[in-house]
Amino acid sequence: MKSESRVISAARMIELGREECLALLAGVPMGRIGFTQRALPVIRPVNHLVDGDGVVIRTHGGSALLHNTSVGQVVVYEADQIDPRTRTGWSVMVTGPATRITAPAEAARYRHLLIPWIDRDMDHIIRISAELVTGYRLDQGR
Amino acid sequence: MKSESRVISAARMIELGREECLALLAGVPMGRIGFTQRALPVIRPVNHLVDGDGVVIRTHGGSALLHNTSVGQVVVYEADQIDPRTRTGWSVMVTGPATRITAPAEAARYRHLLIPWIDRDMDHIIRISAELVTGYRLDQGR
Repeated sequence: MKSESRVISAARMIELGREECLALLAGVPMGRIGFTQRALPVIRPVNHLVDGDGVVIRTHGGSALLHNTSVGQVVVYEADQIDPRTRTGWSVMVTGPATRITAPAEAARYRHLLIPWIDRDMDHIIRISAELVTGYRLDQGR
Repeated sequence: MKSESRVISAARMIELGREECLALLAGVPMGRIGFTQRALPVIRPVNHLVDGDGVVIRTHGGSALLHNTSVGQVVVYEADQIDPRTRTGWSVMVTGPATRITAPAEAARYRHLLIPWIDRDMDHIIRISAELVTGYRLDQGR
């Protein structure tokens, strides 16, 4: 491991535009949501879908995230695909307020499109508005 | 994609103990740090090493994280290995104060052990004290 670390050169970070970031995010099934729970930062892996200018996830009734949506908490959603061997890949970060989707038709549509991965009540739909979208690509090229 | 989503059953979440969590974290080269930057949550992928009861990462001189260590900011560090096809894997989350390692011998040791993946000045060493360690495994078994 250690010798490999010294052989592979460090990657360049190349900034990506908003549309490219959202396309990369839409191309992967999961990412990680970051928010504050009882004054502590938390990160949770979750599956998502990108719909227009938002990232949609599902959560359970006991989730701190769900209760914080009533106060419009700003959260971050990050996804990446980085190969530790080649140190190439990308990372995308979406920041914006999380809102609970309660309109029955809209919620039903998302429940149909986005199936939870875990066997827990994940009845609630959260939409993260993509107000700030940043990302970069890691490149080994010259 | 959609039909597959409906065929694979949802996974059970099985809670893991502290030692198992730290062993899983030590077995992977990278994870994601979550902290607050200008009142907004951020998540950044980074490579790490686990040393005793701490997670060690490197950062650059302009990092908000670095400046916040002077006030003992509590951060979260998360790593996971989840297979989207089988929905099995694990996620581990370490929460605790981030401290900058400034003692020359200790910093030199970590600089030797932990090589940055990106071609940016990553001269500063941050240690996250593993005060709170939680994690779970996703299992498809009966």
